[in-house]
Amino acid sequence: METFVVVGGDAAGMSAASKAKRDDPDLEVVVFEKGEWVSYGACGLPYYVKGEIQSLEDLVSVTPEQFREERDIDLRTGHEVVAIDPETRTVTAESADGEVVQGYDHLLIATGAAAVLPPIEGMEREGVFTLGSMSDGKELRDYVTRARDTGDLHQPDEGPACQFLETCEGPVGVVGGGYIGVEMAEALAANDFEVHLFQRGDRLLKPFGEAASEAVIEHLRDQDVAVYLGGGVERFDGEGRVEAVATADERVPVDMVLVGTGVRPRTDLAEAAGVDLGPTGAVATDAYRETNLPEVYAAGDCAESEHVVTGEPTYVPLALTANRHGRAVGRTVAGTPTEGGGVAGTAAIKAFDVEAGRTGLLEDRAREAGFDPLSGTIQAKSRAGYYPEGGTVTVTLTADRASGRVLGGSLLSEYGEGAVHRSHALVGAVTEGITLGALSNYDLAYAPPFNTTWDPVLTAAKVLEGRR
Amino acid sequence: METFVVVGGDAAGMSAASKAKRDDPDLEVVVFEKGEWVSYGACGLPYYVKGEIQSLEDLVSVTPEQFREERDIDLRTGHEVVAIDPETRTVTAESADGEVVQGYDHLLIATGAAAVLPPIEGMEREGVFTLGSMSDGKELRDYVTRARDTGDLHQPDEGPACQFLETCEGPVGVVGGGYIGVEMAEALAANDFEVHLFQRGDRLLKPFGEAASEAVIEHLRDQDVAVYLGGGVERFDGEGRVEAVATADERVPVDMVLVGTGVRPRTDLAEAAGVDLGPTGAVATDAYRETNLPEVYAAGDCAESEHVVTGEPTYVPLALTANRHGRAVGRTVAGTPTEGGGVAGTAAIKAFDVEAGRTGLLEDRAREAGFDPLSGTIQAKSRAGYYPEGGTVTVTLTADRASGRVLGGSLLSEYGEGAVHRSHALVGAVTEGITLGALSNYDLAYAPPFNTTWDPVLTAAKVLEGRR
Repeated sequence: METFVVVGGDAAGMSAASKAKRDDPDLEVVVFEKGEWVSYGACGLPYYVKGEIQSLEDLVSVTPEQFREERDIDLRTGHEVVAIDPETRTVTAESADGEVVQGYDHLLIATGAAAVLPPIEGMEREGVFTLGSMSDGKELRDYVTRARDTGDLHQPDEGPACQFLETCEGPVGVVGGGYIGVEMAEALAANDFEVHLFQRGDRLLKPFGEAASEAVIEHLRDQDVAVYLGGGVERFDGEGRVEAVATADERVPVDMVLVGTGVRPRTDLAEAAGVDLGPTGAVATDAYRETNLPEVYAAGDCAESEHVVTGEPTYVPLALTANRHGRAVGRTVAGTPTEGGGVAGTAAIKAFDVEAGRTGLLEDRAREAGFDPLSGTIQAKSRAGYYPEGGTVTVTLTADRASGRVLGGSLLSEYGEGAVHRSHALVGAVTEGITLGALSNYDLAYAPPFNTTWDPVLTAAKVLEGRR
Repeated sequence: METFVVVGGDAAGMSAASKAKRDDPDLEVVVFEKGEWVSYGACGLPYYVKGEIQSLEDLVSVTPEQFREERDIDLRTGHEVVAIDPETRTVTAESADGEVVQGYDHLLIATGAAAVLPPIEGMEREGVFTLGSMSDGKELRDYVTRARDTGDLHQPDEGPACQFLETCEGPVGVVGGGYIGVEMAEALAANDFEVHLFQRGDRLLKPFGEAASEAVIEHLRDQDVAVYLGGGVERFDGEGRVEAVATADERVPVDMVLVGTGVRPRTDLAEAAGVDLGPTGAVATDAYRETNLPEVYAAGDCAESEHVVTGEPTYVPLALTANRHGRAVGRTVAGTPTEGGGVAGTAAIKAFDVEAGRTGLLEDRAREAGFDPLSGTIQAKSRAGYYPEGGTVTVTLTADRASGRVLGGSLLSEYGEGAVHRSHALVGAVTEGITLGALSNYDLAYAPPFNTTWDPVLTAAKVLEGRR
């Protein structure tokens, strides 16, 4: 009987374990997870903090008991793998009960990612949060609940009054203008906190392009969120507990700070075992997610992937890739070599009443990749002009000027007007190397409640093709 | 100076005229339209009858004056072309002012489609409507408004009481279970009419597949629409005006009937000029929409198109194809030979609170086309399980068993949960000949407010691939 050992019990790890066991029930499948939670939807944490999801348990798609009893997986929570020995094909794990050494025939490293801790003075202060784990989410939710229900902020008595709202909690700071920063600004503002968002660069949600950045900044300010652009945070001031966020220009009093400045792959364990990292700093693999060590795989947020446009390694730590690559490794280990497919850099976000989706390479990234990019942005109605309600869809497309190949795009609309689902059309175009001309001839669905005769995606392709 | 003559001033005709004139301002562009309306959105007529759109003018995207003054197109409304002479390259048009003969260098036949008049006894009775033209829409809206506002139905005094509702108008009949039938049943029911829908076959919206049919039947019945399946209508009874719909089994009293049993291409003019029809009965063209006669093109609802899966001629009279092919003819005539692209048989509909989209070949059509089809249906959540609200997306996929190539699919969800926009992913797959395995590896957008980690489209592809 062969043994498949998985290090890390979230999306990639549990997808691999489940698929391997289902495809080959004779396989012994052992999963080591250092925490107590497995298979949780970290993407849901901002909604939990916001209060839209009542319980952390709701984020768990399959419980440890289900993995053990229904799926016959030897899941060992509270076990941290501290060493991999590729010579003897063993891993060493530590738990409260001591150390265990476990042999493997196939090994998956799915150690995930950790929140980046930026070099800000005072990061260690009480009241400075990150949002990388379920326990982080719990702490933040507890803070929000307590502050709202009891008014028990940790402000000095002379703390500032709310700047914008007649009644509000806080003030609180959010550092970082990516997914986590924007989603948490929404979550906190929805709980009536006075929110101050600090972004080092000039744009929020940079991968979504300029139009999305401008719309989200406008929406944040409409919701009375103070947005500070271009000012890097230097210090979290305070006596023990954070009391203010300081940039070169300003000092903004806060009672709490959420730092969401990205994630980095957890690669220490892999590196120590002799696993090669790639140019992105994440674990390098082939198309089957196998590392340089035979029968040692890596998938999920600790590993890099190949980009469908450039073919080059890229680091896009998102849930679907983790699930898909984990599942592919599970199939491979169970006897059916399976490529998990590349990534297109696709992403989606809801921010207040706005939704945005993006895929592929936009202008800057396309130029970096050696293309001569041609980009254009159009605005179109989300439903037939005469149809009641509806809004505006903004589509930005980037193509290779010479060939007309679609390289990437982003879409933006009011929430519910379909920017994100419409982006599905672009993912195929980007993945298959379709030209603007071919895309503009696609027979996409049309009816007055859903779009204009030419869906905004088609209009964008048609207009940009006309500019070549 | 060359002259481009267009016969028919709706989607295909006006798209061609506008594009040709814009690309080659020296071209003389003459459009003959027998009616008074041009460039109108016939797809919007059910919403106008329903009362969601207040004015017929709202359906017009560009007015005759705009075409004449802003686009410099010689648009002659009230002119019916009665003959084309390909030898002398002239057309003859009749109007209230007499007959004109107009020479052409390039000619586009865009005569559209007419409502099919089924062989039902009493089709000529007063109160029997079709919905093919703007004037049809006006008559129907007038009927609805008068009946609602004044109670002035044309029922005999002993007319039936409403069967279902405590207060309602009608009863009225709808014959046909396609787009028009279902959309009009919704429009009439929304105006509190007691609606009886008669469908010859066992399914409504047959091209959308079984799951969509069942859901729409259920929704219609929830709205107190009486649905009669499998019973062909034989007679419209009455003294002058329609008083009842009679099938072999039943006689249902009505005050009005809307017949929506499909459309047929208007080809008389083309045929008389020696233009070949194709196997579908519509005008045959090449990829540039040119007919067998040189410089005589045909596009829109009078012409057939090639199917992107089979490459065979098919007749799918829908708005996007008319716009796209008309525009392509305009470019070609202006000097840039342009293929308009094939059709995938894509369609979308909103029926009450349900939306459905479909594309490509489903089971039956795939078998007819010579494939060995493999089909499967899955149901999945429309948003992350823990995310508030959301509903269910039903996805049916059909693939070629041997190769795994995706041939077609249909999607169904509550309105607003994205079945139609998600179908964009399938259009690309069907058009490009993508396999289930490749589709299931697509990096589609994911975030909790929009889908589960695997979008329902991906889940469907994954599940069906697993059954091969």
